[in-house]
Formats: sequence, C-alpha cells, structure tokens
Amino acid sequence: MRFVKAHGAGNDFVLLPDHDDRLELTPALARALCSRHLGLGADGVIRLGPPRAGVGADVFMDYRNADGSLAQMCGNGVRCVAKFAVDRNLVAGDTVRVDTRGGVKPVLCTRGPDGLVDRARVDMGPPRPGVVDDELVVDGRTVRVTTLSIGNPHAVLVVDDVAAAPVRTLGPLIERHPVFPEGTNVEFVAVPARDRVVGRVWERGVGETLASGTGASAMAVAAALLGLARRTTAVELPGGSLGVAWGPETVTVTGPAVEVASGDLDPAWLGALGAGAVARVSGGPA
Amino acid sequence: MRFVKAHGAGNDFVLLPDHDDRLELTPALARALCSRHLGLGADGVIRLGPPRAGVGADVFMDYRNADGSLAQMCGNGVRCVAKFAVDRNLVAGDTVRVDTRGGVKPVLCTRGPDGLVDRARVDMGPPRPGVVDDELVVDGRTVRVTTLSIGNPHAVLVVDDVAAAPVRTLGPLIERHPVFPEGTNVEFVAVPARDRVVGRVWERGVGETLASGTGASAMAVAAALLGLARRTTAVELPGGSLGVAWGPETVTVTGPAVEVASGDLDPAWLGALGAGAVARVSGGPA
Repeated sequence: MRFVKAHGAGNDFVLLPDHDDRLELTPALARALCSRHLGLGADGVIRLGPPRAGVGADVFMDYRNADGSLAQMCGNGVRCVAKFAVDRNLVAGDTVRVDTRGGVKPVLCTRGPDGLVDRARVDMGPPRPGVVDDELVVDGRTVRVTTLSIGNPHAVLVVDDVAAAPVRTLGPLIERHPVFPEGTNVEFVAVPARDRVVGRVWERGVGETLASGTGASAMAVAAALLGLARRTTAVELPGGSLGVAWGPETVTVTGPAVEVASGDLDPAWLGALGAGAVARVSGGPA
Repeated sequence: MRFVKAHGAGNDFVLLPDHDDRLELTPALARALCSRHLGLGADGVIRLGPPRAGVGADVFMDYRNADGSLAQMCGNGVRCVAKFAVDRNLVAGDTVRVDTRGGVKPVLCTRGPDGLVDRARVDMGPPRPGVVDDELVVDGRTVRVTTLSIGNPHAVLVVDDVAAAPVRTLGPLIERHPVFPEGTNVEFVAVPARDRVVGRVWERGVGETLASGTGASAMAVAAALLGLARRTTAVELPGGSLGVAWGPETVTVTGPAVEVASGDLDPAWLGALGAGAVARVSGGPA
C-alpha cells in the first residue's frame, strides 16, 4: 500500500492514493496509521479515491481523523490533495476540483521555483450561522462564543492571551457540549490588528493541532462578524500563517502544502492490524 | 534519500541506510526528521553506515536523538537495525554485530511465520556503577536513586505507583542535575513480583518515551541490586514488554522489532532544510 506523508502549516496527513477505489479506509486503519509511535503518525488519513459520479470533480478526499471518525472537510488536507494531483499530472492545469463530504472544493495551486506546487488556495464555500446565538454555559460558567459552520461546525472564543488560553481544558468541554450533537471544533483567538488574527485550534476528534484550514476560516469570519478584523486577514496559527479572504459569499484560504516523504507501508505491519482493519472493497483485488 | 520507519515496543526511529558512507547525520537533519508534524516523526534517527575498521562489526548505528544530540546506544533502535540487516540479507545468518558509540553489540534475531525478523535479543554489555551512591537532593528534596551505566547513564527511582509517578516534572530535573555532567536517563519503577518490573522512562534529550532498551536494562539491574527482583525478569513499559536477563556479566534484552513503512524523503522538503542540514561527506556524490 503506497502512502505520502504531507502537511499544510503543520497539520499533517497520511495520503493513501486509491484511484481504482480498491481500499476501504476503516477507522482501525486510520487510527493505526495516525499512531505517532506505533504507526506513521498524523492528524488524519486521506484516501484519494475517484470522485462521486456527476459532481464534476477530479478526486475524492475520503478523510478520517486520528481517532477514526469521519470529517466532512479539512482545509489544510485539501491543499495537500491538490498538490498531489497537480505534481503527479492527474489533472490538466493548476486547478483541482476536490470532492469532499462537505461538497466539491476548487483548489488553485501555485508552483515554486522547482515547478512543484508549494502553495494552494481553496474555496471553502460560504460560512453558515451556527446553533448558538452568543452565550454558552460550560461547566457552570458562561462563555461568549461565535458559532458557525464552514463545511464543519466551529465555536470561536475571543481571548486576551492566546498562549495562555485554556485550549486543552475548555476545548474538549465545548467540543462535547450537548448543544452540539455532532460535536464542534473550538478556536481561541486574539485580534491584535484589523488584518491579523492569532489563534489556536482544538480539533474535533483530534485534540489541539498546529493548524486547521476550516479553523482559520472560522476565526477570520468570527473576527469580521464581531467587527474586530477586516474580511481579508492573515491568520497566524502555531504551525504557520494562512491567508483568509471572506468574499461576497465564500471564504478562501491560502497556505503552504508540503510533501515530506512517500513510500510503501510494510506488509507485515499491515497484516498485524488484522483483516478488519485493512478491508478491500467488494470486487477489488485482495 | 531512502528511509525506513521502525519501532521497538513503541520507541520509534527513522532509519537512513547509508552503506556507502555518503551522508552526514547533522543535528538539524535529525531534528527535522523527528518533528512529529513537520517531518516524519520519531524519537531518534539512525544512520546505518559502514562499521569502524577493525572492530569486526556488520553495520554502524549512528544515532541522534530527536533534539539532535548524539546517543551512545539505544537498545530498541539496535534491534530495528538488526532486523533491517537480516531482512535485507546484508548479513549471513540471524546474528548481527552492530557497531555503536557504546561498543559493538551482538544482536540475535528470530523470525516470524513470514520469514522476516519479528523479535531480537541484544547483549547490552555489563552494567557499571553510576556516580551517585544512594541519595540525591533534587529541588530541595532528597530522593533515593540507583545510578548505573549500561552504555549510557541511568538513574532509577522505585515508586509505589508508576502511573502517578512524577515522570514529567522530576524526570527533567534529574536529567540535568549537576551531579550528571552529561545528563542522565531517568526511570521510575515498581516491582509487583520478583519476575515483573513495571516502569516509565524519561529519556535524556527526548522526554518521556514509550520504551527504552537501556532503560529496561537499568530498571531490571536496579531491581535486582535492591533485592526486589530476580536477575531474569519481564520489564513492562507503556509501549510493550521486554525480557531482560542479567547473566554472570552482561545484560540481554529481548523484544519486538517492527517495520512500519519505507520510502523516499521528498527532495523539495530536504532542500528546504538548507545545505547545512543535509551535508554529504567529503568525496561523496552530491
């Protein structure tokens, strides 16, 4: 089984090319691959399968988080998928239409001096209002949140000091708050200038991550909705800086896409996971 | 540049085969490879170079920790090196003599049903007394330690409850205690039975790890010296179980060796590290 290890601003992924649609990305396989010491280690696994019929896309991003759960969309992962497709000439030109569980996302790639993709811009679609109006009671305390959906759900909290923000204590409590039946991603942001948002991300099903594309989008949209920032701003995350622009309708995110390594998973390692983890779809070769 | 990702009981490594001695394993390259989100992610990097002349070994284990520092020896890493050499027929038979900065270590491999190595036993050499007699003053408190060297320095503390042991607070304080001018590894152990030692490891230059071969050796020898355990015992670590036997002179450790994946590092990723990080030795090809 071939793999590529890639990251976008420190949000890292194992990509599994599967253009022939032979592989089932099981929760057990995702967890084993993402294990930092016993596997390859990543925030998530992306199977690159054929797009659904009739949606006019180039590739399907079949995404599972490190805990095995499904994700609708990942703004950093989708850039890595687009870089894979352009660098390997799977598409003509520099735009890739990536089919995701959150809809088809067009990704525009730009190339570095070596001719390979080094940055990409993804249209995340329009932000939609979330389920919470303004205040949320968490563990007996009232916190002010801006909730919205950008393919997946987010709750954004404005704080004075991002470095000291209670990401790892309050993050999981808000993630699993009963008001979010499917859970939510949680972002903690400060806005030191009208074109500069600084934040940290608690990713649903993962924990704190170095960067999140949908998280950066949610941070910028929330900062604009609150009147703190312009609709075009840099969003600085622990893993790097992303450019976010909220146009008349949709949000675009621009940022790096880096390939670290590629190769083959060891057959004995895969075999030890058991038949339930490494399932081939019906009709596919063994 | 080729790589193999491997682990022994959850202590994980990037192996860089370099039989032609063309690569310099710089601290910057080790740090970049070991970065969990921006690189491949590992506790350490092992360059497999030619052994030093005249020592009668098969391969040299050139080891750097995740922080870029050199290590004399790594009991889990040396099993992964031996598996690499046997599985790829670099030696005749199932015994590999691995040259390390801590001396030549003979490793006896055993094969699984698929004919590939799945376990290995390494002779760690004789334990030597450490610098501390019994008591150490750390942060104003007196703690009882057993110090010894098994290729590298160790300080072992017996505790009642390993899960609750102050590994991440006391570990770094003892690691850098002035009495250990080169630092020390630190182990916290409980001995529930005379053939069962349970422990956690704070590895010098790395932090808490899931397993350590020299750490398991130090735990077993300390438990025997203190009269708590027999000289042959299982050592249970968070990443798995190792068998340790302290013979008339030397200590052997038996445990798993697992290969996860192999492949090539991305040339653009390597290039971005800069010329100082990816140095070729004089005379080697560019």
